Amino acid sequence: MKKILIINTGGTFNKVYNPLTGNLDIDKQGEAIKSIAKAWLTEFKIKNILGKDSLEMTKKDRKLIIKTIKETEIKDIIIVHGTDTMHKTAKRIAKEKIDKNIILTGSMVPFSVNPIESTSNLCSAYGFIQDFYKGGVCISMNGIIKDYKKVFKNKEKGYFEESK
Amino acid sequence: MKKILIINTGGTFNKVYNPLTGNLDIDKQGEAIKSIAKAWLTEFKIKNILGKDSLEMTKKDRKLIIKTIKETEIKDIIIVHGTDTMHKTAKRIAKEKIDKNIILTGSMVPFSVNPIESTSNLCSAYGFIQDFYKGGVCISMNGIIKDYKKVFKNKEKGYFEESK
Amino acid sequence: MKKILIINTGGTFNKVYNPLTGNLDIDKQGEAIKSIAKAWLTEFKIKNILGKDSLEMTKKDRKLIIKTIKETEIKDIIIVHGTDTMHKTAKRIAKEKIDKNIILTGSMVPFSVNPIESTSNLCSAYGFIQDFYKGGVCISMNGIIKDYKKVFKNKEKGYFEESK
Amino acid sequence: MKKILIINTGGTFNKVYNPLTGNLDIDKQGEAIKSIAKAWLTEFKIKNILGKDSLEMTKKDRKLIIKTIKETEIKDIIIVHGTDTMHKTAKRIAKEKIDKNIILTGSMVPFSVNPIESTSNLCSAYGFIQDFYKGGVCISMNGIIKDYKKVFKNKEKGYFEESK
Repeated sequence: MKKILIINTGGTFNKVYNPLTGNLDIDKQGEAIKSIAKAWLTEFKIKNILGKDSLEMTKKDRKLIIKTIKETEIKDIIIVHGTDTMHKTAKRIAKEKIDKNIILTGSMVPFSVNPIESTSNLCSAYGFIQDFYKGGVCISMNGIIKDYKKVFKNKEKGYFEESK
Repeated sequence: MKKILIINTGGTFNKVYNPLTGNLDIDKQGEAIKSIAKAWLTEFKIKNILGKDSLEMTKKDRKLIIKTIKETEIKDIIIVHGTDTMHKTAKRIAKEKIDKNIILTGSMVPFSVNPIESTSNLCSAYGFIQDFYKGGVCISMNGIIKDYKKVFKNKEKGYFEESK
Repeated sequence: MKKILIINTGGTFNKVYNPLTGNLDIDKQGEAIKSIAKAWLTEFKIKNILGKDSLEMTKKDRKLIIKTIKETEIKDIIIVHGTDTMHKTAKRIAKEKIDKNIILTGSMVPFSVNPIESTSNLCSAYGFIQDFYKGGVCISMNGIIKDYKKVFKNKEKGYFEESK
Repeated sequence: MKKILIINTGGTFNKVYNPLTGNLDIDKQGEAIKSIAKAWLTEFKIKNILGKDSLEMTKKDRKLIIKTIKETEIKDIIIVHGTDTMHKTAKRIAKEKIDKNIILTGSMVPFSVNPIESTSNLCSAYGFIQDFYKGGVCISMNGIIKDYKKVFKNKEKGYFEESK
């Protein structure tokens, strides 16, 4: 199998309920991704950076993502990211024309609330990248895995769809 | 996206606890697969055939699987199958030299007991097949998605691994 | 068995994740309580009123709770309530000196996020009330079921405890 | 609160899926009960004995249960037990005329498959025993908590009911 790096930047995927405040906080340790690896009886190489809601991501944060992509020797990269600015980050990464296979994914529902959607998004990205060699930046959400330019979040309906 | 047919033959993936008998019975309606589609906010085309434990599969059952593959106009096929004879069925299908992309998957743990492994196996197969065009018969289990000749169940350890 | 009325006023117990907003909203239909009854293979008589976070409860809301208690012919009443002002509502009800057995309960974690605490709180109240005849207003939270004057929320630790 | 001893004898309540064999085995460490205590933010005093399916319980096993009840200084005891011979064990304990409050409970569905019914049965027993002082042997299943002579398993329907 290809060696894959999962860069975990935060987003809804990683949110967990905080009973003291009643809020959903982002777990910065990536326990959700580790839980998937454990139950899947497989191993993931994970790098937790940022731990942010994607609406709060700054230019500096996106530079850190790009730096992390460039610095690793691994060619196949999955980025776990908040859904609201996933497209913006994808566009920013694409501008760099890095010769790697990059897929952004995330989740509308936190893994800790219901694990199916987040697990499906991550694992479909994982499966896709195994036979994907042409490089570029893709998004994998809700069963759609395409070049980022063709996938958009429908904020009213609450899922991602292909642009026509 | 490619149009995919999921042929559901049964296996542990579909087992549900029966409180009247204390046994795990195979649900023949494919509710587990439908639950994944619903939570993933996507749609699956599913054909439920057999509903069998793979240890009980007969020659006739494997013929029915092959017939179902041949009869559909869909070129990309995922087969949900019990793990014990998944390799045997893969070999039997491969003998037919059908010009389609076929991936067998399943689960060591029923979706109804813990949904992560089954969801991961199915969705990684789903992702893989999107960019897989060279035809043949693959197995997708526990993060390994390869030509069936290279993937085996390690019955002692309880997961699938690549042959060396 | 005694006939019990569950008056559902809302609170964390009933919160469900809204993927469109990223917030936890209170389900006003009481689906969490219905889910417990269904899985427990029993039946509950439920009256959904208010559907409010307990921090937002007004004098008028508490009057409605008291009116509901007084109007029903049922003598054994469980009130599902937010945790932050559970004690205040209990005190307000007690002032009425109604000759009924009343237990307030709720949850620190929404049933939809993790069902154990909410189920335990509700079902321990249910069990307690079966053999409770002396009347008064109790709180059932985190394994403590006592006269409301003896049970308090420890906001720093995030659970209820007995006053010393 | 009363000090309660939970004597865990096994049964469906404690069954967990074994992916190597495909069977549901009884966990002898009582992890299910510990999970309830942890999520409920309370503490249980648990004694794990036997770890058996109740159909396999022998005279000697029932003697061990009685010995355990007699030896503890705790007066309030909940026994987690398989459902098939719960009534038989209750009858055998009652014969001893021990001056303690004893409630047998269990589950039709393993905690590990769906935690609601088992949690509800245990926690309703826990709530009931808090205000129960007259001694004797009760059964707490599916919302019915009564003297054991009045509660029976309906094997066809798969739940417990009151005798008429």
